[in-house]
Amino acid sequence: MADTELTQFIKDLVEPLKHCKQLGLTVLEAEQGKLLMALPYSEKIIGNPETGVIHGGALTTLLDTACGFAAVASLDVFEIAPTLDLRIDYMRPATKGKIVLAKAEAYRITPNVIFASAWAYHEDDSDRPIARCTASFMRMSNALEGKNK
Amino acid sequence: MADTELTQFIKDLVEPLKHCKQLGLTVLEAEQGKLLMALPYSEKIIGNPETGVIHGGALTTLLDTACGFAAVASLDVFEIAPTLDLRIDYMRPATKGKIVLAKAEAYRITPNVIFASAWAYHEDDSDRPIARCTASFMRMSNALEGKNK
Amino acid sequence: MADTELTQFIKDLVEPLKHCKQLGLTVLEAEQGKLLMALPYSEKIIGNPETGVIHGGALTTLLDTACGFAAVASLDVFEIAPTLDLRIDYMRPATKGKIVLAKAEAYRITPNVIFASAWAYHEDDSDRPIARCTASFMRMSNALEGKNK
Amino acid sequence: MADTELTQFIKDLVEPLKHCKQLGLTVLEAEQGKLLMALPYSEKIIGNPETGVIHGGALTTLLDTACGFAAVASLDVFEIAPTLDLRIDYMRPATKGKIVLAKAEAYRITPNVIFASAWAYHEDDSDRPIARCTASFMRMSNALEGKNK
Repeated sequence: MADTELTQFIKDLVEPLKHCKQLGLTVLEAEQGKLLMALPYSEKIIGNPETGVIHGGALTTLLDTACGFAAVASLDVFEIAPTLDLRIDYMRPATKGKIVLAKAEAYRITPNVIFASAWAYHEDDSDRPIARCTASFMRMSNALEGKNK
Repeated sequence: MADTELTQFIKDLVEPLKHCKQLGLTVLEAEQGKLLMALPYSEKIIGNPETGVIHGGALTTLLDTACGFAAVASLDVFEIAPTLDLRIDYMRPATKGKIVLAKAEAYRITPNVIFASAWAYHEDDSDRPIARCTASFMRMSNALEGKNK
Repeated sequence: MADTELTQFIKDLVEPLKHCKQLGLTVLEAEQGKLLMALPYSEKIIGNPETGVIHGGALTTLLDTACGFAAVASLDVFEIAPTLDLRIDYMRPATKGKIVLAKAEAYRITPNVIFASAWAYHEDDSDRPIARCTASFMRMSNALEGKNK
Repeated sequence: MADTELTQFIKDLVEPLKHCKQLGLTVLEAEQGKLLMALPYSEKIIGNPETGVIHGGALTTLLDTACGFAAVASLDVFEIAPTLDLRIDYMRPATKGKIVLAKAEAYRITPNVIFASAWAYHEDDSDRPIARCTASFMRMSNALEGKNK
């Protein structure tokens, strides 16, 4: 279902960002307005050394990034889209050692604001979300060249 | 108004955290259930190289941290308090080159959940918030020794 | 799957409430921590006379009520549980003339605060939510007798 | 500071709405993008007969309405503006017998979405908010005649 050209385009935008690199955030699949990302488990993101559970901030960055670039992937021409508001509900702890996936979708696109939502989960337990996110993003007028030459 | 002993206690908890160090987050003042923090302007947190405006993720970390440790500062005995939910509204861009302050307050403390809110602003323009945050935090039963020996 | 005794118990609590009566809110099914409710279409809830689309406030009341009583249905003994915070995202307009269903679940239960989420949808289009809600509720200490004698 | 013509314009829009009438919602002052409303105490809005504390739903309607019509009051030409998302944090109970005021402001106006925030308080205790609200509203393209002929 993924659009390989769009996936590569989004991958090249997201993965070099410094705060994404630090966490090892990976773009797996993109299609029009949708994005699947992964946060691999690593020592760098452990929040509680005794339990090995990852830091909430890593989930926040994963979900904010997934929503923001699902918004970008909903547009025909690349635009920068800063976050206007962001809500995250943490449902249960991630399991130690497991990859966290985030599936995001831009569900409302207006000329100036894009609304997106995402959820984080483990692949073998996708019915029990770890966290959910809703966010809105500002479309900037000065669209740069990109995606749809 | 600040409680110097509590300020030092919170400072020693917050500033060594890796993601706080990277941003240069500083604890300025703490009192029972209240916290004032600073995010200094630096190249590391620039989100848009053309405008010099800082990355939204840096504000998110500032506000999440300020709320979380205002929650910690509301307790008599130190407890770990992971975030349960978090909402951030970005009101207007921070000004290039200026320190961002965050004032946080724990406004409801129950035996298991603490609610806190915070706002980010520039010192010379405190009437026009840059961003506002509301969050809740889980109190963990296994209280560790600390603050109030 | 529904628990008929619990369903009747919640029905008798919810449906006589004045603001629920005005909207015609109905409890369809309850089980431990879960609730299915219905908002029938009626002239009384039309927000836009030209399009016949229902008022957002009716959806808000539906979702707030569904979350709140899913919280009540998660407890062994009846307690009043006032709302602490509430977030609603309106995804798309309800269809004129159609019943709106709301499915709610209490997903985290602490001794003092219960977190619940719900979504509103049409029965024949359950994959495209009309609105989503997350809310938290305060458990009151003065538990009254009820449900599980 | 209030604009008496605008105040009357908003008053005539809000107060006849059925769900506003039921609660007795009153428009006190409007100016460009700002609104002050009142929810008088009455038996109709009591949520807990034992304590006399008002129903959370009445506060929700007050704050949603105040934000929505602050949005309307920010525009030069009247437009319908349905709610896109809404967040309410209930900070502490309203005091039995006292009027609840709500002050709302539209803080970001884009061509298609307006963001507003509001807080509810008692006049003699304005430093301790009862509840806070942030919401966004969709501007509809089909602007109707109004305000600024």
